[in-house]
Amino acid sequence: MSFFRIAIWRASRRPGSRSLATDAHIPLSYAAICVWGANTGVGKTLVSAGLAAAVARAETGFPADSDARTVASTCGGDLAVGPHAARLLPSGGGNPAYSSSSRLAKTLFAWRPAVSPHLAAAGAGEGVADAAVLRATLAELHAYEGRGPYLRGDCLALVETAGGVGSPGPEGLPQADTLRALRLPGLLVGDGRLGGISATLAAYEFLRARGHEVPFIVLAEQEPGTSAAVASLVGRGATQVLSLPPPPAAPTAPSAAGDALLVPATIDAALADWLQRTGSAFDQLRGEVLAQHRQRVEDLATSAQRAQRALWWPFYQHAAARQPVTVVEARHGERLLAFRAEAPDAELGDEGAELQPLYDACASWWTQGLNARAQGAVLRAVTAAAARYGHVILSGTVHTPALQLAEALLRLPGHDWAARVFYSDNGSTAVEVALKMAFRTYLSRKPDLAARAGVVKGDAPAGEAHSNLSPSIELGVIGLTEAYHGDTLGAMECVAPSPYNGPKQTVWYRGRGVFLDPPTVALEKGVWTLSPGKDARAAESKEGLPSPAGAFGSLAELFGPREVEQAYYRAAIETRLDALLDGAGLVPGRPVLQGSGGMRLIDPAYQRALVAACQARGVFTGFWRLGSPTAAHLLKISPDIACYAKLLTGGLVPLAVTLATAEVFDAFKGPSKLDALLHGHSYTGHPTGCAAALAALRCYTDATINPNARALQAAAAEAAPLSLWGENTMRELSHLPGVKRVSGLGTVVAVELEVPDAGYASNAAEGVLARLRARDVFARPLGNTVYLMCTPMTDEATIQDLINALREALLAETA
Amino acid sequence: MSFFRIAIWRASRRPGSRSLATDAHIPLSYAAICVWGANTGVGKTLVSAGLAAAVARAETGFPADSDARTVASTCGGDLAVGPHAARLLPSGGGNPAYSSSSRLAKTLFAWRPAVSPHLAAAGAGEGVADAAVLRATLAELHAYEGRGPYLRGDCLALVETAGGVGSPGPEGLPQADTLRALRLPGLLVGDGRLGGISATLAAYEFLRARGHEVPFIVLAEQEPGTSAAVASLVGRGATQVLSLPPPPAAPTAPSAAGDALLVPATIDAALADWLQRTGSAFDQLRGEVLAQHRQRVEDLATSAQRAQRALWWPFYQHAAARQPVTVVEARHGERLLAFRAEAPDAELGDEGAELQPLYDACASWWTQGLNARAQGAVLRAVTAAAARYGHVILSGTVHTPALQLAEALLRLPGHDWAARVFYSDNGSTAVEVALKMAFRTYLSRKPDLAARAGVVKGDAPAGEAHSNLSPSIELGVIGLTEAYHGDTLGAMECVAPSPYNGPKQTVWYRGRGVFLDPPTVALEKGVWTLSPGKDARAAESKEGLPSPAGAFGSLAELFGPREVEQAYYRAAIETRLDALLDGAGLVPGRPVLQGSGGMRLIDPAYQRALVAACQARGVFTGFWRLGSPTAAHLLKISPDIACYAKLLTGGLVPLAVTLATAEVFDAFKGPSKLDALLHGHSYTGHPTGCAAALAALRCYTDATINPNARALQAAAAEAAPLSLWGENTMRELSHLPGVKRVSGLGTVVAVELEVPDAGYASNAAEGVLARLRARDVFARPLGNTVYLMCTPMTDEATIQDLINALREALLAETA
Repeated sequence: MSFFRIAIWRASRRPGSRSLATDAHIPLSYAAICVWGANTGVGKTLVSAGLAAAVARAETGFPADSDARTVASTCGGDLAVGPHAARLLPSGGGNPAYSSSSRLAKTLFAWRPAVSPHLAAAGAGEGVADAAVLRATLAELHAYEGRGPYLRGDCLALVETAGGVGSPGPEGLPQADTLRALRLPGLLVGDGRLGGISATLAAYEFLRARGHEVPFIVLAEQEPGTSAAVASLVGRGATQVLSLPPPPAAPTAPSAAGDALLVPATIDAALADWLQRTGSAFDQLRGEVLAQHRQRVEDLATSAQRAQRALWWPFYQHAAARQPVTVVEARHGERLLAFRAEAPDAELGDEGAELQPLYDACASWWTQGLNARAQGAVLRAVTAAAARYGHVILSGTVHTPALQLAEALLRLPGHDWAARVFYSDNGSTAVEVALKMAFRTYLSRKPDLAARAGVVKGDAPAGEAHSNLSPSIELGVIGLTEAYHGDTLGAMECVAPSPYNGPKQTVWYRGRGVFLDPPTVALEKGVWTLSPGKDARAAESKEGLPSPAGAFGSLAELFGPREVEQAYYRAAIETRLDALLDGAGLVPGRPVLQGSGGMRLIDPAYQRALVAACQARGVFTGFWRLGSPTAAHLLKISPDIACYAKLLTGGLVPLAVTLATAEVFDAFKGPSKLDALLHGHSYTGHPTGCAAALAALRCYTDATINPNARALQAAAAEAAPLSLWGENTMRELSHLPGVKRVSGLGTVVAVELEVPDAGYASNAAEGVLARLRARDVFARPLGNTVYLMCTPMTDEATIQDLINALREALLAETA
Repeated sequence: MSFFRIAIWRASRRPGSRSLATDAHIPLSYAAICVWGANTGVGKTLVSAGLAAAVARAETGFPADSDARTVASTCGGDLAVGPHAARLLPSGGGNPAYSSSSRLAKTLFAWRPAVSPHLAAAGAGEGVADAAVLRATLAELHAYEGRGPYLRGDCLALVETAGGVGSPGPEGLPQADTLRALRLPGLLVGDGRLGGISATLAAYEFLRARGHEVPFIVLAEQEPGTSAAVASLVGRGATQVLSLPPPPAAPTAPSAAGDALLVPATIDAALADWLQRTGSAFDQLRGEVLAQHRQRVEDLATSAQRAQRALWWPFYQHAAARQPVTVVEARHGERLLAFRAEAPDAELGDEGAELQPLYDACASWWTQGLNARAQGAVLRAVTAAAARYGHVILSGTVHTPALQLAEALLRLPGHDWAARVFYSDNGSTAVEVALKMAFRTYLSRKPDLAARAGVVKGDAPAGEAHSNLSPSIELGVIGLTEAYHGDTLGAMECVAPSPYNGPKQTVWYRGRGVFLDPPTVALEKGVWTLSPGKDARAAESKEGLPSPAGAFGSLAELFGPREVEQAYYRAAIETRLDALLDGAGLVPGRPVLQGSGGMRLIDPAYQRALVAACQARGVFTGFWRLGSPTAAHLLKISPDIACYAKLLTGGLVPLAVTLATAEVFDAFKGPSKLDALLHGHSYTGHPTGCAAALAALRCYTDATINPNARALQAAAAEAAPLSLWGENTMRELSHLPGVKRVSGLGTVVAVELEVPDAGYASNAAEGVLARLRARDVFARPLGNTVYLMCTPMTDEATIQDLINALREALLAETA
């Protein structure tokens, strides 16, 4: 007989890993469920035994109403195991000796003596789910059972947890956190005693607040009405609540020492009686667990098709999609779990559905900044703020999250220059706000121009028709070619003409500005090499200044002072700007590293020169994305206006800010409301986003959460350029065959492939991306550039794994 | 001696209210704390007694190390009360007899027999915090103590809860939900037994997930290491964890029946000993509770000033602010709790700081759609989704919340017409997306125009310069005067010239369209009266059609078929449109009720005529805001493109959708990625917002949550106009002196005041708004229009309260 089996996950690729592998593949070819307890002593093991007995009956035709004692004696007791089962998770009283009665009954990990898990973990120095043990057990199971049907179909794997949902595991986190990565549906054994409603409800929400699905709550009911109350409070639909008779009296009281909870050879009469009376309930539960599993796999399997019918994806050609749709089941830290219908299974030797962990190397459009631990911290801050405030209008009003975040931003990116924080919803709206700020500020510096435009402080004269059509001035921005500032029409006006703003997308685009072609820098065969933009060359003839060096030994040299080259660039820029008459000096360049243009690293000396050449300076920078608090910090420049979005909330919800100097703010003061900045969004400064941002900001610099905190802060203190991927690694990559150039800074490394058809529409990178995908890396193309983006918190081991995957993919593609 | 007092909240204005008054004012002139239990039997009463003893010592100079037995005997036992204390909250074993020993020792409410609160509540048919009992107790306390110092300063009020944090109260909700409205800081008595880490942590998060601050956790530690583990898991900073010695053995075991938990006349030696040993710890705790209270009031008192230094508010003239800043401490359902430094206190006869409950009658810029119960349901759905998914890129990928929401939207507002859902972040970006969709769709219908614009499917020819500057066509929108579609520059182009888009705000605005002046309807002295727009009159001379009736008996008549009038309007509209050559037929009018223009109710026959007159129709409507699923539904028209935002998430986080027909979607199909809609936001379809929207959509139609669900659905079934304020009520308001016109539909009622200086900049409404504020209603002005906005879930009693407040304010202002 094989009653049930535990879920066995393929082990981490990193041997010796002490925590549950977050890069484990999770098979879906059989049902699995995780048994949680609302508390200790609520009957988890009893429920596991009952469910095991139901599996046994279903497999053997064992009648539910007879000889329950026999069934129970093989699968009941402290440990809900049959002879072919094994346990993944720690137990207070697991008995390793018991497993010797069958060579396949393994307790994979147990703490001894039977004390609270956090103490045992501290003393034992052992982790759960050790990779080597898992692998050996898997091999044993195969040797015994042969291949095929045993791990397929109606087979039910059962993982029993230790203690309550929040009992800490060896990582120091509640086990409900540790097990998040596995996406097991949960069966919560509730507390049926007095006070049990509260305990059950709190445990249920604890699991839900970690993303666990909890389709079942089972209560051995001692206090009448408990299950009914729980059912009414957890709400309809998602969770079934099953009431069982009160549990039998415990056969022996647990003692503090040793093996007091060992499985007795036979079970007592009260337990056998309870198992017999609950037999039909467990039979039904087993059926529903299996049905729920089938439904889950069915939902996953049909999601791609349903999405293709209902969604309109951004930046996606629905008529010519070559890639299959990625169905994402969950995120855990930096990884997504994606459904795969037919995954090759090396250990089992056949194919089956699974959840594939994918490193999110596009950081979900560059938004992600947190590891799993930080995500938990941010989530709890968000939940508390959302519960306390919901949303509150923010105009002439204030709430603590918006206030604290504004003050924090004025302290860090705004230090020494910014006076005010204006909230909006995303980078694109933050840019629109910055534009309006720049317009007015520029006009306030040029009273003649303001008069020509009809801009006078105070209310509009009564009865006068609005004269705002075609004001007799033209203001434009100074931008960089291949820049990107968002897709609202105002932000689109700030970039040079391209297929992205052509008449296919909008017939209103005019390109209101002057767009300079900046010099960029990338590693070519190990050397940082300059590609001068065409606008830079203009200076040479005019000023006679020496042109910049063509090569640099290191990022540090590149970001060094370089005054002479800066003067050269400035002359070049002024040559171009002389052509402008009334241009506003706004610079909406996302400086240093241009993303959508293919991760172009713009010469920092040029950026500094551009800022110096402009009166009004707007600098758009990314939070910690470049290994520095902001790009302005790295360039040692002080902007007038700055926009932050994406990483601002750590990657949870949209929120953006536009920071401005006192001069900019004062330009909007006046006797009339019409003098104010009449721009606002409904969810301005929403507490959820502000709380996320505050928590995320703390996490970035918290060394107990962010393993890179010290390195980042050291680099920030010197405004030194830092690559989390390692400058040497980038240099090495640039020597690989088929690689034209390598660029990157902070969290980004980008490899430009040597191909004939460059540009966004190019599909050159697809082969490399497919190979990365097979290695559990989810990357997205930028034309013939392949980039990987980690978070500011990515640990060294993950970086190494990713670089290895990239190197192998590049080599294989050119082999 | 007066050891401590319970917090006494002024009772609800609605006598007989059975639930805790959500409109209660909350005094801040003395410290209050709520004592929660991680479970039953963890020692809540013990901790309350210890804290009470500390207060006694501080007030009397009683030494901490002597005669603890005496202190304990006066304040210990089952009920932590001294002779002058009273209890607000239910207890399983409260003893009403005990209170007869002093005429001021009141148990305000107790359940008998001592069973689980939910059962007692079901049997007793009684609610907590009955208004009359509270009022009587307050009077008694005053009679005994006199006024002044007793409820001021270092006085500590203590509210002990019953059972665990999730134990249900009489409303059927966990008491942690019921007590949310009071914003009491929490002291959680943790579980110091084996398994207590998990139980304490889960209870802590349960409270935090309801917006409770929990500055203190106190554990009577039986299992060593528990408090240290709890301290490490709740994180640093916000919460102090205090460890106490194991509790004394319980004097008597509770029995299931009767009054077994009654306070003994004297306490036993073990308890006295425990209280003595913990004396200094409780002395310190008392000090920290008081310090925490002072800090809280200090933070609230300085927030306005800090906000004025750091924030840049939207639509706010910082130089000429007349209104004090509103500091919002929390939201509970439809009410905000705002700090008031000097509130007149009718009962106490003096002034002190308080939290004032304010009905959010601007629905925080029209975003709010949920009552307190629905907010809880949405919050839990959001927490689960945020924990499971964080954010996941949505392009060629899919996750369940985005998929399910898209399918739900195609079923409800999209039924019969929409084929696709495009996600963005707010209404303004949804309009920008709609604009781009309309441009392309229009060009796909006009191949000649497309050819002139250079729009050809496929990749851009290699090597050809981008020719997207000044395409030789001009497309504009057809809009309505005084419309508003958002503040991004593209959305601003879709409205007529006004001070909001003049050169003070942007020098780029051109007003790309034709803007019609629609006829509007409002109640004047009880009659729905038409104000024909100037564009409507044009038809008369041209077509000879009879002009529309000038008056209507009811909303139902107004929204009736009216074919003849519709034909008249259509002729009028076509007269204007004839002037247009290449105008795109997009109608970005927020139809039916125009908000920012002063809540103008546009003649529905005109709206229908306008849609009929246009080929490409874009209709922008609000979810349930108008008492109908959407405005399109109410007008019985089928749009090509529709935008939804604001209420979409119920009012928690920004999220917007643009729905489109298959024709619109197909216009973006092509062989090249460049043919696709190249518009996207980083947080496209973020799971948090999608989960909120899904949960909110369910709540709107759930009769167990929304008291108006049936009325709304009945009206929707017939596409009948519905006012939650009552058409008769609106009619009555229109007869009041000083009222020019009254308008409204669904959740909105708007009163236009009779004043000389109409328009947005007018301050005419300020007097009325100030009077509303004094009646706990937070409304915002729209020029000389005062409007109240409820949610689709607002109950009848609240509507009546609000109407009474409005009527009184209007009468008082003109008196």
